[in-house]
Amino acid sequence: MRSSAHAVISRESSPKIVTIAEKVPPGPSKSTLADVIFGRRLATAEEDEQKIGPVAGVPVLGLDALSSAAYGPEAALTLLLPLGALGLSYIVPLSGIIVAVLLVVYFSYRQTIAAYPNGGGSYTVAKENLGQGAALVAGAALALDYVLNVAVGISAGVGALVSAVPALLPHTLLLCLAILVLLTLVNLRGTRESGLTFLLPTYLFVASLAGILVYGGLRVFAAGGHPVPVEASPVLPVSTETVSLWLVVRAFASGCTAMTGVEAVSNGVPLFRRPTIPNAQRTLTVIIAILVGLLGGIALLARAYGIGATPPGEHGYQSVLSQLACAVIGRGPLYYITMGSVVAVLALSANTSFADFPRLCRVLALDRFLPDTFATRGRRLVFSYGVVVLAVVSGFLLVAFGGVTDRLIPLFAIGAFLAFTISQAGMVAHWRRAGGTGARRSLWINALGATATGITLVVVIVSKFADGAWIAVVVVPLAVFAFARIHRHYRYVGNEVKESRPLDLSRAASPLVVVPVQAWNKLTSRGLRFAIELSPDVRALHIVTQETEDGAPCELARTWETLVVDPARAAGLKAPRLVVRKSTFRQFFAPLIEYIEQLRDEHPDRDVVVIVPDLVVRRWYHALLHNNRGIILKGLLRLRGGPRVVVVNTPFYLT
Amino acid sequence: MRSSAHAVISRESSPKIVTIAEKVPPGPSKSTLADVIFGRRLATAEEDEQKIGPVAGVPVLGLDALSSAAYGPEAALTLLLPLGALGLSYIVPLSGIIVAVLLVVYFSYRQTIAAYPNGGGSYTVAKENLGQGAALVAGAALALDYVLNVAVGISAGVGALVSAVPALLPHTLLLCLAILVLLTLVNLRGTRESGLTFLLPTYLFVASLAGILVYGGLRVFAAGGHPVPVEASPVLPVSTETVSLWLVVRAFASGCTAMTGVEAVSNGVPLFRRPTIPNAQRTLTVIIAILVGLLGGIALLARAYGIGATPPGEHGYQSVLSQLACAVIGRGPLYYITMGSVVAVLALSANTSFADFPRLCRVLALDRFLPDTFATRGRRLVFSYGVVVLAVVSGFLLVAFGGVTDRLIPLFAIGAFLAFTISQAGMVAHWRRAGGTGARRSLWINALGATATGITLVVVIVSKFADGAWIAVVVVPLAVFAFARIHRHYRYVGNEVKESRPLDLSRAASPLVVVPVQAWNKLTSRGLRFAIELSPDVRALHIVTQETEDGAPCELARTWETLVVDPARAAGLKAPRLVVRKSTFRQFFAPLIEYIEQLRDEHPDRDVVVIVPDLVVRRWYHALLHNNRGIILKGLLRLRGGPRVVVVNTPFYLT
Repeated sequence: MRSSAHAVISRESSPKIVTIAEKVPPGPSKSTLADVIFGRRLATAEEDEQKIGPVAGVPVLGLDALSSAAYGPEAALTLLLPLGALGLSYIVPLSGIIVAVLLVVYFSYRQTIAAYPNGGGSYTVAKENLGQGAALVAGAALALDYVLNVAVGISAGVGALVSAVPALLPHTLLLCLAILVLLTLVNLRGTRESGLTFLLPTYLFVASLAGILVYGGLRVFAAGGHPVPVEASPVLPVSTETVSLWLVVRAFASGCTAMTGVEAVSNGVPLFRRPTIPNAQRTLTVIIAILVGLLGGIALLARAYGIGATPPGEHGYQSVLSQLACAVIGRGPLYYITMGSVVAVLALSANTSFADFPRLCRVLALDRFLPDTFATRGRRLVFSYGVVVLAVVSGFLLVAFGGVTDRLIPLFAIGAFLAFTISQAGMVAHWRRAGGTGARRSLWINALGATATGITLVVVIVSKFADGAWIAVVVVPLAVFAFARIHRHYRYVGNEVKESRPLDLSRAASPLVVVPVQAWNKLTSRGLRFAIELSPDVRALHIVTQETEDGAPCELARTWETLVVDPARAAGLKAPRLVVRKSTFRQFFAPLIEYIEQLRDEHPDRDVVVIVPDLVVRRWYHALLHNNRGIILKGLLRLRGGPRVVVVNTPFYLT
Repeated sequence: MRSSAHAVISRESSPKIVTIAEKVPPGPSKSTLADVIFGRRLATAEEDEQKIGPVAGVPVLGLDALSSAAYGPEAALTLLLPLGALGLSYIVPLSGIIVAVLLVVYFSYRQTIAAYPNGGGSYTVAKENLGQGAALVAGAALALDYVLNVAVGISAGVGALVSAVPALLPHTLLLCLAILVLLTLVNLRGTRESGLTFLLPTYLFVASLAGILVYGGLRVFAAGGHPVPVEASPVLPVSTETVSLWLVVRAFASGCTAMTGVEAVSNGVPLFRRPTIPNAQRTLTVIIAILVGLLGGIALLARAYGIGATPPGEHGYQSVLSQLACAVIGRGPLYYITMGSVVAVLALSANTSFADFPRLCRVLALDRFLPDTFATRGRRLVFSYGVVVLAVVSGFLLVAFGGVTDRLIPLFAIGAFLAFTISQAGMVAHWRRAGGTGARRSLWINALGATATGITLVVVIVSKFADGAWIAVVVVPLAVFAFARIHRHYRYVGNEVKESRPLDLSRAASPLVVVPVQAWNKLTSRGLRFAIELSPDVRALHIVTQETEDGAPCELARTWETLVVDPARAAGLKAPRLVVRKSTFRQFFAPLIEYIEQLRDEHPDRDVVVIVPDLVVRRWYHALLHNNRGIILKGLLRLRGGPRVVVVNTPFYLT
């Protein structure tokens, strides 16, 4: 280094590594508005207190799955409508198959939880066992599923509400967005908070439906299989079609939407308190047990009471659950409580997405397929950026579809079943590799699951292709492409900035400093003083854009000696050199940049620092009255200066 | 200064003031697209070649005044309509009075040109003689007049065109904007260019109208005062009102719009080549002579041929000039040439504003009532900023009024007559102060002018108040208020940055440099190297947002010795200190700023430099993938750092 002065003047002899303490405000801090809305800031060490057990786990991760009971059987029954009363005889075996697949999926995900306790679900399983490509497909499918689940869940809940209270119909979109804001805020306050907030509606839903199913079952038993409904259901239409395999397969595929949401627990394992794996497994067991009970009970009672679907969107439509409740207990207060809890659970089923989507994005961000920010915890330790992005994207969908998202349902099922299938297939590969006792049995369970969900996926894609399923076929590859491009960019940047060698100071030298000066004022004097503090080689560049009379030297040149050179000499410092350059075409930037480029090229070993004094104005519109040359110059030098040219703005504050 | 090293290491002994030559490209430079559109760049020294004489001066500064002949007499005749054929007997005496006032104004402005050869017209005259307040009122009035003149002139021309060719009616706005763009481009190419471009239509207009008037006059003479029209004019309506003083006064006020534009030459004196004053006076004389001839001829022939106005906006409307041309020469080719030149001159009358508005803004900017930029010459030596602002504001008016700006005409006359009156009053004060021979006569001329234009102003305001004149009464004071606020801001900033003392280096010291470091990479290494080049006191600040396992020291702390301390010692330099600070709440900026503030407060004499390595990405959307901490940090430190904290972004270019 040309200047060896630095070591001389510093008299402090200090340790080279210092750890300084955090400033802790004395006493309890005052609550800010942000504290009230988002909850008080949580320290990283408080993470364990935010974790949840099975009781809160069901509302956090189970709402998506449980709410399926409200539309899965109905979806199957709707497809059986053309068969008339005959269709009812298929609902029990179909539900049996769905429950069987559900159990296979259950055992399969139990195994996944134990094998991959760090969460990430399908993405992680696929990455470990099938490779990054399959993992990205699973990630894209899951992300699509989560986003659509928010839009579809909220609009299904609001749809049920407005069909019960038609006066609210004009406010559909507003209600949807209000629920979205509620979910977003609660989830920004933390996972635990959302579990506690949604505890009541969840268990009310489970208790009231279970009550109706058990009471209805007892009445069926008491009546010897032919109960008299308290309120009769609509008569089923006469048969218009004969049964066909394709019809039954499609009814099965529709009924399978009852399984969406089952993967949620395996994706969110790190949310659970210790012992993590048993807690997560217990939660999954509770969810599946409730779901199986509800699905089985609904199928059996629908059969016993002769309840089928009513044509959706037509006059006289009544949901299967509503018919069932009417038949078993009549339209009393209990009926309204039950239906209210159904509406709430549908609307809140989006909560599962809010728990899992940010975690999925975090895993993708850690693997550098998404921006870093997704892996940053916010003030309440949740991955706030993912929560906000989920809210914005699904809010956009709600607005675009005016709050009625029926047409998105096929897309939603595709995302879920694609992720299921990849995950199960990954587990098959996992067990094949793992080997040993039990692995064989586990392998077969997962293979069965993969086959079942794979078939369902194909059926859903084929039967719903024209209805919008093609969008998923386009969106998933696009998302995978975007992930890959992001990853490529990060890898490229990572390689570019990677540094394995230690600091290289062999050619370190004081920089050449350039200060553009146009007149003598406090900004100029501040800039020059700072320049002199940085380096002994300071050049003040004066661009003459206006011709002075008869070629007389400009004001600045006349006073330079007195104003700058003398004080510098008096302080024992090298005086800055004034460089005067005429600009025939009245340009300011072109000659300045030319000079800086020339200086840079003449001194290939040294950095060039350009100091631009910067007037800090008090009001933004004051900036309109100043020329903002600093900003323009900085932009131009970023484009043309290259890595050795550094622009420094010295602030000058107006008092 | 603590470091006295700088003077030691520099071995160059160079003059303290250097003038460097401009890089002149060898041979003629290639034409760029900008050269083709705006013309080649002009050097400041080429200014004289851009100046104009009387021949080009008439199209540049006279179009506004000359085009008045096309609507002034018509405006007066329209008001006389209720008198029927009787009204015609008033047009000759009224035109006589108008011509008399015009001559008073002419002599008055001749004197102004001689007294104020630097231009600025009413503003300068008022400033010198009546004080800054009156000058700002005159400036605001003129600015309003110029802006409205562009909108009104273009839309009048296009209006005449579409009434001749009704197929163009739907394209009114588009035609207006096309002419505006043409005028803007030609004027950005320079004043001389606009004079040459608009020479032909101007002199065609003068020649054809003069021809008609002279030929018509001869025929009147030959017919003994009762000529037979080639094509008969519409019969005048029967009288519906009796003559009243108020009617005559209003007709006079409307006819006075024929005088707008007369001040243009006195505002644009510096545009003329030497001898400047005679050239400007000669131009004014030519313009006034033509205008007087046209006004007088139109009045006399209208009387002789019995031509009155037709009700505007009604079926069968025909302009007075068109009737006159028909009566004298019939609807032959010459008629169409004449009317074409009338249309062109109306549309191009806006050119006067383009010559004068930028000069007015320049004078206001030099007095610091408008931003500096208005005083900067563009590539063709015109004050381009003023040209562009004029085009944008009048374009906005054209769009807002859909290209039909009749309702703006009263406002436009108010601006002009307010400026006239203030200017004349200023000249009265000028002559009173000057004294001496001739001053008395000059004083009376200007006093007469001030009285005449003042009365006209009052008549226009009163008679047109409800029709929109009130807007001018609101806009002018608002503009004056804005000028005053801008001035106050500049004066305040000027006082704040004013520096009379020489450079103060008594407390100059190497700055304290802070480099936020999060990992070891090329960005970090670049930032540290630059920091070490700037100062011996470098602190690398590491904010730990993620807790490492069991409180183990972070990667950076473990390798600091090897990567940084050893190389620095080997180079004989003081090693940067690594400061590690835990962030319990995972914040990055808060602890960083806290540390910088603390450092600043502990060292009240020293500057604090914060170095933020900055990744320069190739595509703007890549910025979405990076955290852009540099920008956020810079903003925060601008708000909280104060004048001694300087942020430096060291660029790192991706190759």
